[in-house]
Amino acid sequence: MQKTLAEIAKLVNGKLQGQYDENLIITGATGIDLAGPNEVTFAVDPHLEEAISCNAAAVIIQEDVEGFNKTSIKVKNPRAAFNILLNIFKPELKIEHKISDRAHLGNNVQIGKNVTIMDFAYIDDNAQIGDDVIIYPNVYIGQYAKVGNNTELHAGVSVREFCVVGKNVIIHDNTVIGADGFGFITRDGKHTKVPQVGNVIIEDDVEIGCNVSIDRATTSSTIIGKGTKMDNLIHIGHNCVLGENCLVVAQTGLAGSTIVGHNVTFAGQVGSKGHIKVGSNSVMAARTGLIADVPENSVYAGFPARSHQEWLRIKASEAHLPDMVKKLKLLERRLKALEEKKD
Amino acid sequence: MQKTLAEIAKLVNGKLQGQYDENLIITGATGIDLAGPNEVTFAVDPHLEEAISCNAAAVIIQEDVEGFNKTSIKVKNPRAAFNILLNIFKPELKIEHKISDRAHLGNNVQIGKNVTIMDFAYIDDNAQIGDDVIIYPNVYIGQYAKVGNNTELHAGVSVREFCVVGKNVIIHDNTVIGADGFGFITRDGKHTKVPQVGNVIIEDDVEIGCNVSIDRATTSSTIIGKGTKMDNLIHIGHNCVLGENCLVVAQTGLAGSTIVGHNVTFAGQVGSKGHIKVGSNSVMAARTGLIADVPENSVYAGFPARSHQEWLRIKASEAHLPDMVKKLKLLERRLKALEEKKD
Amino acid sequence: MQKTLAEIAKLVNGKLQGQYDENLIITGATGIDLAGPNEVTFAVDPHLEEAISCNAAAVIIQEDVEGFNKTSIKVKNPRAAFNILLNIFKPELKIEHKISDRAHLGNNVQIGKNVTIMDFAYIDDNAQIGDDVIIYPNVYIGQYAKVGNNTELHAGVSVREFCVVGKNVIIHDNTVIGADGFGFITRDGKHTKVPQVGNVIIEDDVEIGCNVSIDRATTSSTIIGKGTKMDNLIHIGHNCVLGENCLVVAQTGLAGSTIVGHNVTFAGQVGSKGHIKVGSNSVMAARTGLIADVPENSVYAGFPARSHQEWLRIKASEAHLPDMVKKLKLLERRLKALEEKKD
Repeated sequence: MQKTLAEIAKLVNGKLQGQYDENLIITGATGIDLAGPNEVTFAVDPHLEEAISCNAAAVIIQEDVEGFNKTSIKVKNPRAAFNILLNIFKPELKIEHKISDRAHLGNNVQIGKNVTIMDFAYIDDNAQIGDDVIIYPNVYIGQYAKVGNNTELHAGVSVREFCVVGKNVIIHDNTVIGADGFGFITRDGKHTKVPQVGNVIIEDDVEIGCNVSIDRATTSSTIIGKGTKMDNLIHIGHNCVLGENCLVVAQTGLAGSTIVGHNVTFAGQVGSKGHIKVGSNSVMAARTGLIADVPENSVYAGFPARSHQEWLRIKASEAHLPDMVKKLKLLERRLKALEEKKD
Repeated sequence: MQKTLAEIAKLVNGKLQGQYDENLIITGATGIDLAGPNEVTFAVDPHLEEAISCNAAAVIIQEDVEGFNKTSIKVKNPRAAFNILLNIFKPELKIEHKISDRAHLGNNVQIGKNVTIMDFAYIDDNAQIGDDVIIYPNVYIGQYAKVGNNTELHAGVSVREFCVVGKNVIIHDNTVIGADGFGFITRDGKHTKVPQVGNVIIEDDVEIGCNVSIDRATTSSTIIGKGTKMDNLIHIGHNCVLGENCLVVAQTGLAGSTIVGHNVTFAGQVGSKGHIKVGSNSVMAARTGLIADVPENSVYAGFPARSHQEWLRIKASEAHLPDMVKKLKLLERRLKALEEKKD
Repeated sequence: MQKTLAEIAKLVNGKLQGQYDENLIITGATGIDLAGPNEVTFAVDPHLEEAISCNAAAVIIQEDVEGFNKTSIKVKNPRAAFNILLNIFKPELKIEHKISDRAHLGNNVQIGKNVTIMDFAYIDDNAQIGDDVIIYPNVYIGQYAKVGNNTELHAGVSVREFCVVGKNVIIHDNTVIGADGFGFITRDGKHTKVPQVGNVIIEDDVEIGCNVSIDRATTSSTIIGKGTKMDNLIHIGHNCVLGENCLVVAQTGLAGSTIVGHNVTFAGQVGSKGHIKVGSNSVMAARTGLIADVPENSVYAGFPARSHQEWLRIKASEAHLPDMVKKLKLLERRLKALEEKKD
């Protein structure tokens, strides 16, 4: 793939500035430190300075940046513009749209048009695969599971029996959708399994990282809402329901029946006690430990979770603690002395 | 599968109450909000109110509930009764008991009766597989490993060389039993591998979630005791020994040589320093960070771990910290003023 | 494998002490409690006492230990000596060096000499595999990926497209190298994927545990430096760079663009905010939560991270908090009384 510099500017709806040759051939878009004389990059604060001396043919910058002493393309949103170019220049993988005869297709499997199923993938009985789906090697699709159109399942993914994956979903390697929830009845110290007869529903436009575990519901469904994006190594317990367009960062764990609104962000390594509700548009800072409901539009942090501001104040005070212990003792002594004099 | 309402009541050893037709056909058992007119559900506090207006044919409730204004089946233990019904109505998967000729069977592999080995599973040389075992696709069983009767290994599980998995064990997708423990000798800043020549022993009746990592011992064995149940994304370091009937909730990590008694609960995201002992019948609250031994029958929380009660008191006080810093300063000033007047 | 006791002493460059038969046949090296009369073990404080009464033929101990009342082999470094013996006695697995015709080799794949590729491994188009590489079943090697000489990839590992794995690397089961980094542009609440067009570079002599996720860079490379050793269930975000000979313990998560020097230790369950720098030779105690740069040679702990010593002081003071709240109130009252008397 190659474009002229002028074409690039047009593609991102930007204005070329400084010295340039409109017809210069551009072969890629990459980071500031990597970009060569036939590539473009982008820069925002605090990387503008660094970008001036880089080797790129041009730097995509915000339209209101002044005094940028190098060829640039000024745009409204440099990140979005750069994203357009990444999509244009990204190395295309050649994927043959065929169903390998070294994959396993069970009885009564339904498969859409233009589907790729690579060697050693296993589609179990009565599963349904939509159009334009790409299934990498060593994927397991359980009995009666459904995978929607244009979805991509990377190597080693499991979608267990009866689970439903929507359209335009990407699931990265070795993630497991629909293993049994952690449910037991304990009597006399022995734990008896509660059958997990529900499923998992992954709605459209979801992306899930690798080595993630989303458990099937005891009854009914564990749900990941439309457009929600999940990072790596996340645990979602049985019967959790996540709303639309949430962001769940790596190593977060939500215990069973956590109910989450829309546009909620869980930064990394967050945990939640089960059976609580997290309101829409809330942000849980990294490592927040939730033990109670969170209202809408909250920014929470700490364990147990509280408002982020309050948490910051407490954390700032913590440093004084050892001193406070000493001071308190001293004060007590001085006060006692005073009281004794008084008498 | 279908039963009459009277049969259902008998199966759970319960008494039908309110208005009902003994011969009504029941086709399933599910959650309160899902249950239709030919299904049963169960309810305990605080869900009783909600259950009165649900669509279920009958609600299984505790025998001492009064004034429940809907058809019910009264029993001693509603959860246990519901569990019986889940087992009866759970959708049965059809699994053909055969060894696929697209699986790999190494040299000198021993395989019991009535075993299922699906395509793309790999049973390495000298492994032993018991009777009635189900091995899903893409499972790897290492050299000289043993899998006991009636055990179920889901897709992508690894049981590495020389490891032993007992009877009636369930291991969910992509869990790894017996990868090398994390052991190195460091000299001049370089880390040299310590061979991990021990194994892992998973005793009978254990269930392990998905994406779990249980490392093999340096020498001797890492052991998961009989009846212990483990959730997802758990790390168990080399030479850990867990007793019987423990519960280990998601994302817990036990460093090497953690020795755990019986009936211990690790709630989610717990961590332990290695080479410590956790006494039987203890409970580690979520996120507990253990750095020293825990006596039997303890309830611990926090990091570093302490008694749960003490932790609660500390956490309650934390909110006062910012105020305390100010107050202390003020007190000091007032005291000083007093002292100066005094002179 | 068997050696005489005299041969063992020579192998570890040690001196036999106490009563012994030089020609005694030694068949193994194992732990104190396991070692039988034809095996050797090692002991350091506080295990010396225990070792005196063990069944081993001889105990490897430090040369300066006095009064050890049992046959021993005195050496400079007992651990290192024992490691030599573990390597000698470790059970050898028989691995046939051949490329299975039940593996998938894509178009234009290059494969070195003496390579093992087991059934159901999938080497995608244009991948390069070096000499003496061992690839276990169900491994996926993406398009244009490279694997260096003498590297071992265990079952279920994914090395995604364009990623590079060096020489003498060991990657344990179900680890994923090079899945997409977690990058989105959010507009009007909707998240649009930022293509992740970089790769991952794993340098020589690295070892990585199981179920680890190392994400590919947005542009350029996520890098794991030469000789670094990683445990299980670790998350490394896109564009992280780890230096040489680091130790990363289980369940640690480094957010995107964390830049780490050489010889850094991350104890278990550490987390880092992205875009920070951790200086060489630093140690992050277990569960440290990094939110800012760490200078070289630091020992940090806590969340937010601070010097380990300061953290210890704060944690010691915490226990006093509930009392301090009370004391402060009391002091206030006493002071007020005094002030009032004064007037």
